[in-house]
Amino acid sequence: MENHIDENEKTSSVFSEAELEYIAPRSHKTGPSLLSRLGNRLRCSGQMAKSLLFKFIPILYWLPRYPFKEWLLGDIISGLSVGIIQLPQGLAYALLAGVPPVFGLYSSFYPVFIYSIFGTSRHISAGTFAVISVMVGSVTESLVPNDTLVVTTNESLSDTGGERVAVAASLTFLVGIFQILLGLVQFGFVVTYLSEPLIRGYTTAAAIHVTVSQIKSIFGVSITQRSHALSLIYTIVEICSKLPQTNIASLITGLIAIGVLFIVKYLNEKYYSKIRIPIPMELITLIVATGISYGVNLNETYGVDIVGTIPVGMKAPVLPRSDLFPKVVGNAFAIAVVVYAFTISLAKMFAAKHGYTVDNNQELIALGLSNFVGGFFSCFTIGTAMSRSLVQESTGGNSQVAGVVSCLVILVIILKAGELFETLPKAILAAVVVVNLKGIFKQFLDIPMLWRTNRIDLLVWLVTFAATILLNLDIGLGVSVAFSIITIIFRTQLPHYSVLGQVSNTDIYRDVARYAQAKEIPGIKIFQSSCTLYFANADLYANAVKSMSGLEVDKLIAMKKKAMKKQKQMEEKNEKLKKKENGLKHRARDQSEKEKEQNSIALKIPAVIEKEIVVDYEVIEEAKQGFLGNGNIFHSLILDLSTVNFLDTVSVKILKNIFRDFTEIDVTVYIAGCHAMVLEQLEKANFFSKTITKGQFFSSIKDAVTHILNTQSLTPEQRNEIFASTKL
Amino acid sequence: MENHIDENEKTSSVFSEAELEYIAPRSHKTGPSLLSRLGNRLRCSGQMAKSLLFKFIPILYWLPRYPFKEWLLGDIISGLSVGIIQLPQGLAYALLAGVPPVFGLYSSFYPVFIYSIFGTSRHISAGTFAVISVMVGSVTESLVPNDTLVVTTNESLSDTGGERVAVAASLTFLVGIFQILLGLVQFGFVVTYLSEPLIRGYTTAAAIHVTVSQIKSIFGVSITQRSHALSLIYTIVEICSKLPQTNIASLITGLIAIGVLFIVKYLNEKYYSKIRIPIPMELITLIVATGISYGVNLNETYGVDIVGTIPVGMKAPVLPRSDLFPKVVGNAFAIAVVVYAFTISLAKMFAAKHGYTVDNNQELIALGLSNFVGGFFSCFTIGTAMSRSLVQESTGGNSQVAGVVSCLVILVIILKAGELFETLPKAILAAVVVVNLKGIFKQFLDIPMLWRTNRIDLLVWLVTFAATILLNLDIGLGVSVAFSIITIIFRTQLPHYSVLGQVSNTDIYRDVARYAQAKEIPGIKIFQSSCTLYFANADLYANAVKSMSGLEVDKLIAMKKKAMKKQKQMEEKNEKLKKKENGLKHRARDQSEKEKEQNSIALKIPAVIEKEIVVDYEVIEEAKQGFLGNGNIFHSLILDLSTVNFLDTVSVKILKNIFRDFTEIDVTVYIAGCHAMVLEQLEKANFFSKTITKGQFFSSIKDAVTHILNTQSLTPEQRNEIFASTKL
Repeated sequence: MENHIDENEKTSSVFSEAELEYIAPRSHKTGPSLLSRLGNRLRCSGQMAKSLLFKFIPILYWLPRYPFKEWLLGDIISGLSVGIIQLPQGLAYALLAGVPPVFGLYSSFYPVFIYSIFGTSRHISAGTFAVISVMVGSVTESLVPNDTLVVTTNESLSDTGGERVAVAASLTFLVGIFQILLGLVQFGFVVTYLSEPLIRGYTTAAAIHVTVSQIKSIFGVSITQRSHALSLIYTIVEICSKLPQTNIASLITGLIAIGVLFIVKYLNEKYYSKIRIPIPMELITLIVATGISYGVNLNETYGVDIVGTIPVGMKAPVLPRSDLFPKVVGNAFAIAVVVYAFTISLAKMFAAKHGYTVDNNQELIALGLSNFVGGFFSCFTIGTAMSRSLVQESTGGNSQVAGVVSCLVILVIILKAGELFETLPKAILAAVVVVNLKGIFKQFLDIPMLWRTNRIDLLVWLVTFAATILLNLDIGLGVSVAFSIITIIFRTQLPHYSVLGQVSNTDIYRDVARYAQAKEIPGIKIFQSSCTLYFANADLYANAVKSMSGLEVDKLIAMKKKAMKKQKQMEEKNEKLKKKENGLKHRARDQSEKEKEQNSIALKIPAVIEKEIVVDYEVIEEAKQGFLGNGNIFHSLILDLSTVNFLDTVSVKILKNIFRDFTEIDVTVYIAGCHAMVLEQLEKANFFSKTITKGQFFSSIKDAVTHILNTQSLTPEQRNEIFASTKL
Repeated sequence: MENHIDENEKTSSVFSEAELEYIAPRSHKTGPSLLSRLGNRLRCSGQMAKSLLFKFIPILYWLPRYPFKEWLLGDIISGLSVGIIQLPQGLAYALLAGVPPVFGLYSSFYPVFIYSIFGTSRHISAGTFAVISVMVGSVTESLVPNDTLVVTTNESLSDTGGERVAVAASLTFLVGIFQILLGLVQFGFVVTYLSEPLIRGYTTAAAIHVTVSQIKSIFGVSITQRSHALSLIYTIVEICSKLPQTNIASLITGLIAIGVLFIVKYLNEKYYSKIRIPIPMELITLIVATGISYGVNLNETYGVDIVGTIPVGMKAPVLPRSDLFPKVVGNAFAIAVVVYAFTISLAKMFAAKHGYTVDNNQELIALGLSNFVGGFFSCFTIGTAMSRSLVQESTGGNSQVAGVVSCLVILVIILKAGELFETLPKAILAAVVVVNLKGIFKQFLDIPMLWRTNRIDLLVWLVTFAATILLNLDIGLGVSVAFSIITIIFRTQLPHYSVLGQVSNTDIYRDVARYAQAKEIPGIKIFQSSCTLYFANADLYANAVKSMSGLEVDKLIAMKKKAMKKQKQMEEKNEKLKKKENGLKHRARDQSEKEKEQNSIALKIPAVIEKEIVVDYEVIEEAKQGFLGNGNIFHSLILDLSTVNFLDTVSVKILKNIFRDFTEIDVTVYIAGCHAMVLEQLEKANFFSKTITKGQFFSSIKDAVTHILNTQSLTPEQRNEIFASTKL
């Protein structure tokens, strides 16, 4: 007994290390430090090249260390389950992509196999994916609107039809190239622009596109292909107008299939904990429907559209048609990013759950190689389907071996059993597609959730949804990304400005308008903006400071300017009078009897001037009190810049103006909580001068307040002297 | 003597109030509070309507209070000086706008007069402006490429030519409409998107467009009109290829005029303080050149292009042609915004200098009405020229009366003296244009200045310049605005992440990598990002926290998961063994001789399990020490969120993940400096739970550190209990 445990322990210990190693070298995020450490370890044995090889071809690393005993059974069961799902999904999504069903089988084989070799996620199921397929479909259908030919034999592919297949393959090839390039230049981060609300709004809209495109198969009507803006609306209108031509047999087939699939899906989810391996109802439906269709001859008797000839055997690789590249390059880039966004979010989810890491850039390269190779074998673009990945994980899949097993299932179908499905009604495939969208449609629940939690993200969701519905999947995506970037501007364009007060007996300062406990400190105004300061809100900031200070700063400055002007005039007059006086004195030397009189004038003038000036400055002080009320006069203004992330030239200028204006009306301005980076930018921008010194900068509001209270009794001039002599 | 002073004092006192009042009612910025106060004051006397009237028609307010004695002389001198400059500029800029010169005179009269009535700035000189004229010119010339007809009589305007005039008038009308609308809905803030570096880069590029368009007049060659992208390049190439056809007389005329104007401009600036009123060299040049041209008959003798017939007298107003509106609407919006941007920045500069305020929205309405009315009188769009405004201010202009006076000067020219300028060579006008651009070309000095102060703003400058040069003034402006918005994303996309340490014996925390005095507190990691957190940098933030913590968090979590899995397996085995043991015991009741042996097994098993678990957790602790070195192990992580302005759903999720991951490896996470708004967003987003409580939030790093040091001796569980019981 004891022995057995120890043995087990040993095996798993060995693997434990292996497994951890297997995670580590591909963890790009921790990047240089890890690599350099790895390097140090490996350089001695000259195995640097080997570690690079392991990084780019992960299978070389993990396969020799694969714990057959522990994982193989799970992987095989999981692989079979996934393979059985790949078959109907492959056939169905091929219709979404606008190509004959057999290409869905190819797409479920070649690229999936390649992904198993290069991928770093152990639980995602690469393969056909509804959203991507419909994106491909929008390209094939817009470039080849009338490719209604159903391929009948292998040979006819090249000459009679397959134009759409060529488009899809060229597109897939380019998607692969883009992904490989993005991976090599380590640009995986582009995906961060596809924020979660955007992705969810986008997929919800895509699901509606998919559903509408399948309705025609279920109703058995034929619809004009459209790819312009608002095409979804036109298509819905056309479907409604063609409802009288519904093929009843097709509709019944479709509805029954949807009903059955839906119920079994529900049961599978409900009793998942008991049965572990889900009932492969899609496959059963396919087989039963094909059988009935063959028996009753649905196609000829009732005009039900069927899948048609499925060629048996492999196809030789064909070079993607380079003449199509310019037409699909834009879409290829969009699809490349979307595929990656879905894959990486799913991969990260599983990695977090199972405690391993995936390498962002290696994932890009793996997907890229899959699609690149797929492009040679007439595949359409693959991604990762969430539902299938969940099956792969929950049925016990532990590694990419499950993917390889699922490929073998598809290979057998391609080589031997494909033709069995020739009489399968297309309505069944449409049903498979629609039922698989259930999870995506649940995303409509995001709307109330986001309404409660974050309305700007809700706006992103809704705009993305609307743009994708109305402008289709390509332009809609571009518009959505642009919009979600602009929301960052929204969020900083209208900040919340507040005057802070001290929460009694603490060092905490809070908005006085919202916290009753926060009280303003007499003589000090503390001002805070909720957002960073830059050109688009700098003006607002200055105005808010002025208006929330309660002073009509501009008016006070105008009064002061007026007073100064008057002072100057008076001085000039004084000067004139003095000259006159001097002249008089000069004359008076001889006229001593007038001397006394002149003196009295000379004495009088300065008195007049002084009175003049005093009166005017008093007016300003009075005006200040008028604005604020007697008790609220303040002599210090603290600007809390802790929310400021960076400063541009416009905001530096605005800050300078605030210093200038408030200094003009004898209010000293202090800065609190300015971050080191921002301080550096201020230095570079020549912000500091004789009148604005670093002595006015404090690391926290508390420090600034303490300083102000200590120097309160000083005059502004004395304070300025202190600043001039202080250095931070 | 005394009496005189008092009298003076009284007058100015009366005005002082009036003047301040005159500023106040139109000060929109201080908005509601001021209006309501005004309202309170006025409601009693039922003068609300009057105050509104004063707001929208400022002249009604200030003219009755105009201090004739003090200001009139200055305004008249200033108005004459400006009028004398308006004449040559009007004629010259009309060529830029692609219309016959006389329309430059109209544009210097009607709109300027309207602005005087509605404007709130007292020192800017409304009228023709080079940048705006060339923007108008790009529209007229692209819509009417071959309108080479020179209007000869008033009547011929409507039938033989004037298509460009119609375009310019329609454009101007729409510009007016846009400005009035923007003013009425108080959307003056759109101008904040035109940041200063953008405006300066844009005008510099515009100046190059203007210069190139004038070169042909100076060389006397005719050039194909272009308005597509890169047209500037093509035009330069064409000019070079046509250099051999240069009209020598035209070139000499132009060069002499440029030389003379340049020298006099320089002298005017240098001796400004002595002469006060600049020498009207442009007018003198015009008169002399016209005289010479008439005397020598430059046009017929040397083929020098002249201005041609200038119709005398006023034109009846004409409705703008509505069929042209759709073609110019986009440009009209761009021009409306640009005009406003220039005007408001200039108006604010003068207002700050002279201590009064301008009303943003009233300025928009004033400009709008000027252009709206101009649209009926075949004017092209007007703005405010900086150089002319400086003349208006420096020659003693005090109010819009100067503008009215300058209008009268132009009116006299239109009515009486226009035809005198018919023989004026166009090369002279080109020289006037080019010399007036001197100030704008000085803006090239921004490049080294911005290089030193703010490189991202330099990038905005350069991109704006390049886009405007290559894509022309309309599309270039759009691209530039888009780019300057995107720079906000740049600035937050790659933040600076830092680990903070305490500056010894202070409450100041600074980046340990940059400040030698800052020392990390043992056991505590403090992490700060220089930027706000949102979808595009959330992932970077999480990775930076993990990598800068020095721990390989994911690896540790993987190890822990592994250990837990093993523990679970062991427990299961334990369970099985216990069951087995119970069975054995059951059997052993009768077989008492085996009892002892069984018991020994049962006792042995838990020991094995316990060892197992302990070993695995020890591995994690050892790994931690391996990552960090023995002394640097930390148990607390403080995230300083003071730079965070807002949170979206992505960043909330990332924060949650950071809490989850670090808690998993027994590191307690604290938040410091989180702003009230952000805290609210976290609450809304259901951030807080049993494991993340407000007890982990502190208003400053210092508070968090104090708390941690106080509770250091407690276990993580005890600490969590504290959090659960605390509320902020």
